[in-house]
Amino acid sequence: MLTPLGLHYSAFMSVIEAQGTQEQVDKWYVAAKRHAIIGCYAQTELSHGSNVAGLKTVAVFDAKTDEFVIHSPDLTAAKWWVGGLGIASTHTVVQAQLIIANKSYGPHLFIVPVRSPVDLKPCPGVTVGDIGPKAYGGFATVDNGCKVVLFEHVRIPRNNMLMKFARVTSDGRYLPPVHDKLSYGGMVKLRVDIVNDAAIKLAKAVTIASRYCTVRRQFGGPTIEHQVISYSSVQHRLIPLLATAYSIWITSQDLYEQFGQLTEQLEKNNAHLLPEVHATSCALKSWCTRQSSDGIETCRKALGGHGYSIFSGVSELFATYVPSNTYEGDNYVLSQQVARFLLKQLKESSNFSSASYLKKDETVKVESAKTLLDPQVQLRLYQTRAARLVKRLSQQLASGRPWSDVNMECWEVNLAHAEYLIVRSMIHRVTVIESSELAPIMKRLLDLTHLDIQIVN
Amino acid sequence: MLTPLGLHYSAFMSVIEAQGTQEQVDKWYVAAKRHAIIGCYAQTELSHGSNVAGLKTVAVFDAKTDEFVIHSPDLTAAKWWVGGLGIASTHTVVQAQLIIANKSYGPHLFIVPVRSPVDLKPCPGVTVGDIGPKAYGGFATVDNGCKVVLFEHVRIPRNNMLMKFARVTSDGRYLPPVHDKLSYGGMVKLRVDIVNDAAIKLAKAVTIASRYCTVRRQFGGPTIEHQVISYSSVQHRLIPLLATAYSIWITSQDLYEQFGQLTEQLEKNNAHLLPEVHATSCALKSWCTRQSSDGIETCRKALGGHGYSIFSGVSELFATYVPSNTYEGDNYVLSQQVARFLLKQLKESSNFSSASYLKKDETVKVESAKTLLDPQVQLRLYQTRAARLVKRLSQQLASGRPWSDVNMECWEVNLAHAEYLIVRSMIHRVTVIESSELAPIMKRLLDLTHLDIQIVN
Repeated sequence: MLTPLGLHYSAFMSVIEAQGTQEQVDKWYVAAKRHAIIGCYAQTELSHGSNVAGLKTVAVFDAKTDEFVIHSPDLTAAKWWVGGLGIASTHTVVQAQLIIANKSYGPHLFIVPVRSPVDLKPCPGVTVGDIGPKAYGGFATVDNGCKVVLFEHVRIPRNNMLMKFARVTSDGRYLPPVHDKLSYGGMVKLRVDIVNDAAIKLAKAVTIASRYCTVRRQFGGPTIEHQVISYSSVQHRLIPLLATAYSIWITSQDLYEQFGQLTEQLEKNNAHLLPEVHATSCALKSWCTRQSSDGIETCRKALGGHGYSIFSGVSELFATYVPSNTYEGDNYVLSQQVARFLLKQLKESSNFSSASYLKKDETVKVESAKTLLDPQVQLRLYQTRAARLVKRLSQQLASGRPWSDVNMECWEVNLAHAEYLIVRSMIHRVTVIESSELAPIMKRLLDLTHLDIQIVN
Repeated sequence: MLTPLGLHYSAFMSVIEAQGTQEQVDKWYVAAKRHAIIGCYAQTELSHGSNVAGLKTVAVFDAKTDEFVIHSPDLTAAKWWVGGLGIASTHTVVQAQLIIANKSYGPHLFIVPVRSPVDLKPCPGVTVGDIGPKAYGGFATVDNGCKVVLFEHVRIPRNNMLMKFARVTSDGRYLPPVHDKLSYGGMVKLRVDIVNDAAIKLAKAVTIASRYCTVRRQFGGPTIEHQVISYSSVQHRLIPLLATAYSIWITSQDLYEQFGQLTEQLEKNNAHLLPEVHATSCALKSWCTRQSSDGIETCRKALGGHGYSIFSGVSELFATYVPSNTYEGDNYVLSQQVARFLLKQLKESSNFSSASYLKKDETVKVESAKTLLDPQVQLRLYQTRAARLVKRLSQQLASGRPWSDVNMECWEVNLAHAEYLIVRSMIHRVTVIESSELAPIMKRLLDLTHLDIQIVN
């Protein structure tokens, strides 16, 4: 993500690959791969971030010319935060409301040229500009990250709409996708990558902090001061974060596997797994981004004074990871989707394994402190807590509290569900490598993650 | 603090005023006031931050020439993080080990010229250099904040030692201060200012976030989307922080008052209040800096995507306030001093009002949720919790656990004591303005602070 071409690969090319017809992939993806064109992905607008359905940019079909007319009706519809558009991009994928004969079909994706590939001058009708520097000096190395795009009646051929799922014919007929949420796969993928990145960034910060605190000395000792890592206040801050980094990494591997199964299914027009993988990626995205960005800053502070030097290398990790709390779905907004999924599972008693705990009875016996380290007890604890919170939320809603009033209950449900998923992945990993000499170490990481969550809650 | 001359006023001039003789004040403070000289304050060394007693820079008295020789024995003794030294400073106050006839008398303060006031070239034997940019782009507007200073046998007149308390005569006699901790007043003052600054910075962030979330709309509404502030997840994040900002501000006013009394006493060579004001400033500094910097980042995230633009104005607040967690005493290190003070009070049953709760009995009756809002119950809750933690720590130590092992217990004691002080100040303020129409509003801020602490704990 931190090279000027990061989003060209991770957003532009991958969206074309996932959402384009074979013909479109042959044309655009191949050109993008050999860098004949450079692209980015324009979804968020100045006034429309969380509410994607409310995007204002339109793509109006003109049957006479077989074209779409891309238009931003006002400044609030300016595409904003479009990373990579600053210098290099010649094309962008635009999320716009598809309009045919005055009827809106909701947001769809269109490839729009924005700059000449020859001299990089903006195309007619396209305004591009810098939205300025980011918080904490983040993404300063990346083509300045984000730009504003406005379109004034920009015409593109009909074939520039990405038509793998939904299609528009030359005579203006709209052919919907087999499943209306088939195009969600791409957004799920971005969240899966964010979860994985949480582990990488946190692991880096913990590594830097642990190494520095081992070398750095302060106070005590007859001839040489004590290593800072020897202080319990430093251990209590860093070591649980080390366990968390491993836990997130392992959980993200399971998430990749689930996403792989989903992708295979979607290829066959089967969207059965989509709700579960969507909810799982949302829950983990919220939990892991918060855990990782808070954890990186904890590491930075554990470095003491020198953590405030940019040369410690930790602040850059925070600066570039912390926006993930708000991008690709603000964590608090996503938590509502997680809660909705679980409430639905509670009612429908479906067979998604991640929600099957809703059917179990709600008693866990913790007979001693040692019992707390029994994996089955650990798992039951998280299942029980999450199930109780989901049921309580369901009762609250049944008693008449409006949805807009239960944000914090959704947030609690999200955290409890995510923590269950994390502990479940860790327990699964410990089980499958039972005979390996790594198993006892993994078990300790699991226990530390588990105990740390217990202390925080 | 954010102008290139900030530390000239707040550190250089104020230290001379507090620690200089009348003659020294007449000479240096007056010159500094009319900017004939520009100063800074050089205490921390590359390898010696928390451990001030372990500073390596020496000031060796040479009776033959009536001079001190300021010397950095090696690179680890290089003065580091000296804010304001980058461009403008001609002088610095150096904290150095006073050595007379091979005997060390511990750290003392010396005024050392570092650059010619005429052409700003470094003085002979003085090396100055930039230590580079800071985390999160913080302090980028301030003369780059911090520089490195190395001294190679730099000679200064004997009268450049700040001699209000300790003195060195021309024949090399050391005259100690009446109380060995009289010179601590200046460091306490810096912490008092930091506590006050916590309120200002947090209040700014909450104001920006609340206003933005009132204007910003997202989702719902028949014709116009809902104000973001109307969502309970936003209210739950911002409104307790609003109460916290007021609570810290009010507590800091009480702290200024206590510091004023201390200063008056110190002028009369009476250091009786010093241990209490020192412990109070340490406890509050740890709690308030953490609360404020975490809170600012919570505000930034509550701004959603646009919070990540530098133009939101919030990230700069975090970038410049967050190092206060580690400077002027790392929070975790300071917590040990707070715990030491309280353990001493537990044994000595002294009459410091901030620790008198240690003598009370430890039962609080909370009969109903409503009782929780009774100020006397609130106060007793915090007293009881803090007292229990102090006693438990005392027992742990009595049972043989070494001091280095109980860092986290000290940290808990620090937080509990600080929270007691905060709630006590708020209750006091509500009581004194009882007849004012502001009183019910202040009571609600008190209750919200109190309940927020209860939820976090």
